[in-house]
Amino acid sequence: MDLRKCVAEAIGTFWLTFGGCGSAVIAAAFPEVGIGLLGVSLAFGLSVLTMAYAIGHVSGCHLNPAVTVGLAAGGRFPAKDVVPYVVAQVIGAVIAAAVLYAIASGAPGFDLAKGFAANGYGDHSPGKYTLFSGLLAEIVLTMMFLFIIMGSTHGKAPVGFAPIAIGLGLTLIHLVGIPITNTSVNPARSTGPALFVGGWALAQLWMFWVAPLIGGVLGGILYRWLSEEPSAQVTGIEPTGGRPPIRPAT
Amino acid sequence: MDLRKCVAEAIGTFWLTFGGCGSAVIAAAFPEVGIGLLGVSLAFGLSVLTMAYAIGHVSGCHLNPAVTVGLAAGGRFPAKDVVPYVVAQVIGAVIAAAVLYAIASGAPGFDLAKGFAANGYGDHSPGKYTLFSGLLAEIVLTMMFLFIIMGSTHGKAPVGFAPIAIGLGLTLIHLVGIPITNTSVNPARSTGPALFVGGWALAQLWMFWVAPLIGGVLGGILYRWLSEEPSAQVTGIEPTGGRPPIRPAT
Amino acid sequence: MDLRKCVAEAIGTFWLTFGGCGSAVIAAAFPEVGIGLLGVSLAFGLSVLTMAYAIGHVSGCHLNPAVTVGLAAGGRFPAKDVVPYVVAQVIGAVIAAAVLYAIASGAPGFDLAKGFAANGYGDHSPGKYTLFSGLLAEIVLTMMFLFIIMGSTHGKAPVGFAPIAIGLGLTLIHLVGIPITNTSVNPARSTGPALFVGGWALAQLWMFWVAPLIGGVLGGILYRWLSEEPSAQVTGIEPTGGRPPIRPAT
Amino acid sequence: MDLRKCVAEAIGTFWLTFGGCGSAVIAAAFPEVGIGLLGVSLAFGLSVLTMAYAIGHVSGCHLNPAVTVGLAAGGRFPAKDVVPYVVAQVIGAVIAAAVLYAIASGAPGFDLAKGFAANGYGDHSPGKYTLFSGLLAEIVLTMMFLFIIMGSTHGKAPVGFAPIAIGLGLTLIHLVGIPITNTSVNPARSTGPALFVGGWALAQLWMFWVAPLIGGVLGGILYRWLSEEPSAQVTGIEPTGGRPPIRPAT
Repeated sequence: MDLRKCVAEAIGTFWLTFGGCGSAVIAAAFPEVGIGLLGVSLAFGLSVLTMAYAIGHVSGCHLNPAVTVGLAAGGRFPAKDVVPYVVAQVIGAVIAAAVLYAIASGAPGFDLAKGFAANGYGDHSPGKYTLFSGLLAEIVLTMMFLFIIMGSTHGKAPVGFAPIAIGLGLTLIHLVGIPITNTSVNPARSTGPALFVGGWALAQLWMFWVAPLIGGVLGGILYRWLSEEPSAQVTGIEPTGGRPPIRPAT
Repeated sequence: MDLRKCVAEAIGTFWLTFGGCGSAVIAAAFPEVGIGLLGVSLAFGLSVLTMAYAIGHVSGCHLNPAVTVGLAAGGRFPAKDVVPYVVAQVIGAVIAAAVLYAIASGAPGFDLAKGFAANGYGDHSPGKYTLFSGLLAEIVLTMMFLFIIMGSTHGKAPVGFAPIAIGLGLTLIHLVGIPITNTSVNPARSTGPALFVGGWALAQLWMFWVAPLIGGVLGGILYRWLSEEPSAQVTGIEPTGGRPPIRPAT
Repeated sequence: MDLRKCVAEAIGTFWLTFGGCGSAVIAAAFPEVGIGLLGVSLAFGLSVLTMAYAIGHVSGCHLNPAVTVGLAAGGRFPAKDVVPYVVAQVIGAVIAAAVLYAIASGAPGFDLAKGFAANGYGDHSPGKYTLFSGLLAEIVLTMMFLFIIMGSTHGKAPVGFAPIAIGLGLTLIHLVGIPITNTSVNPARSTGPALFVGGWALAQLWMFWVAPLIGGVLGGILYRWLSEEPSAQVTGIEPTGGRPPIRPAT
Repeated sequence: MDLRKCVAEAIGTFWLTFGGCGSAVIAAAFPEVGIGLLGVSLAFGLSVLTMAYAIGHVSGCHLNPAVTVGLAAGGRFPAKDVVPYVVAQVIGAVIAAAVLYAIASGAPGFDLAKGFAANGYGDHSPGKYTLFSGLLAEIVLTMMFLFIIMGSTHGKAPVGFAPIAIGLGLTLIHLVGIPITNTSVNPARSTGPALFVGGWALAQLWMFWVAPLIGGVLGGILYRWLSEEPSAQVTGIEPTGGRPPIRPAT
């Protein structure tokens, strides 16, 4: 395991959590001209798009335990590297929540009780959706996220465009899901704010590990079946500047 | 006919219907920070953009009976494969409506009578547009959609960019058309929600098969004339990673 | 002059005017969930982005007399072809206004007196900006539009991306300019709606020919100087699918 | 130092400041249909995206003293060219503020006291964020901006996509930061409006030179370490149409 890959994953997940949750906490409901859920959806997507171009060639730019596990299930990532990647992602997300707290708490009226972009269900769902709705939505949305990642980085897909498909795919996922659970599809992103909010957010955190991981594995397996890929293939999001993703001859 | 192509079309149309209609049902009118018609327009477009990169190289990523029929009229898709593609698309859209119903009904205040993103005209047009306005708009918008698809996947167009042009083209179509008919340009997308809403939505469903199919055929023929393409050419949206999208009939 | 090029310009300008002005007339101020000036800005930009990929390889996709004249001033388009292109563009825009009128007039409360997306200054500026402000804004914005077009289609720019730069450049221009003049930077787009609104819109139409043409010529000359291009070079927006824009050896 | 490169930087920074600040001053709070902070965020990002395709091959398209200094710290830009680039950028931004003033002052109700898009902290922060919050946010956001620039223009990143990553990265930065400081991350962009607003804006201007420059240097160094690049490599944003962006020092 290359340390630089883990640092890249930590920085990238920092950016996803700081940019996405930061836009929600700081700008979503700004009086009269706030960016709303549309702006937050764009922010999450652009955090992945920008990092995929910046570090895709370093670490593959997963930024998400469900992506790392899903790519492993899809035969695109070695199982032995899953744990260090996931640890690095969680560390990046926690640091992001800490920096965001340091900045956001400098405004009058800041209150962790407003949610700090933590994910929740039932009484803590923005639209009061049930646990069942949240679970189903998180599984389906993460499954389709992995499906998009697997497909757009496939050797037959156009080279260099995967970060656009994946980033804007995450935007679409948020355009649907924020009222349901505040949208996770990413256990690391959920963990950062939950540690600061505590209480209910920590009590509900299990769901934002379980559902995305289930969805990620389903998506990885679904695409793998669809594309008849050999299981030995190991790539990732990794845009590859002119050459097709490296894989052994089929 | 390859089964995998049909499954890819079903999954893709699931995503278009779940993502597009889901954003409308769940997030468009969320209090104060809702994504509005702009967010819904982006959601429909991004569903196509993401799938075109993910499965374009599998099935051509039509996701829409009007696209399949229009490409056949434009000489880009074999007539014998039209029926299985359309069946797969409708199945995907119906499953999407079912999953969306399962999720959305978990929120207080959910009511199918609010429309569930079904398409309509007259009293059921969001802006109370007449049947004539709706018919004309759906024909013109679908015609231009096919024109964009045919043009951006032409052998002389830049390779790899078609999913961006086509996806954002669908966004533009929704930016214009939602107040008129809730925007269909896609009979499969219209059929899914209509089955759940029933009543008026089923009674008006004919229009969202007839108008898009007319428009699709017109667009396919118009571009074919403009580009002087030989009728033997058979491609599709299908991004093709490095090689131009021209290939012999299969 | 190839007839197909002129038809392509007419269809493309139809789409720009129908999509851009249509989004403004139909969806901008839709109650509670309207797309606003941001949605209209995106619509204008996406109309150009989509057409540049669809017909860039046919006609160069100018869709705008100021672009055609500016490219001629910049040494990128033959002077003898300017008139047929401009005529085709105006025809396309007028047909777009007619179709938009047929659709939009099918809604209760439709009223041409609300402006029908015509451009204006002084009392007819959305924000009541003076003639001087409008003139200066249209000149500067069109100049920079041509600068972007000339630069992003230059032989040293990345191949295939120009439609994104040009389309989103038009979006940016609208994000700044709508309150000032409703944003023209395109005499054809201005002429279509003005013919239907009549009165003040026709009386002010001169400005939306004069200012964009001045700005277009300035932008073409400015970039030509900056890039030291030989005047013999003849290309256009024209994305060229893998090969660099054709030009004689320097 | 080539004069044309400096002119390109001045024109580009003119566009960034005119487009970004112009959208804020003219369109952000337009009654009922204003573009809001989301539209302003897009405007800033698109100004960079469009210029990066238009002049990236001329000057590298920095448009920002923090980018120029950060790229020098990252080993991508020769130190001797930093001063002429920064001077050109500031000149472009000041001209932009002057032209924007000439246009915007032609509307009833225009008032420099509303801020004219100047950056500020404490009482002059849009959301009343403290100096500490503003300083931390500007440093972190500029650091990540340089990280994205360095990464997406790296020789292993896909060719031609950097302007999309960098432009939309600036959009994301604004989606987070506008309520905090009105978002600078660019000393030139801050200087233009401050000269017109005077008073508090000039008194607080130091912060929008210090923080972005610190952040830029940190980002340049961070990515350089991550990528193990040799310090002799000298490039920039500069999209390079088919060849990787590595070239010997000029």
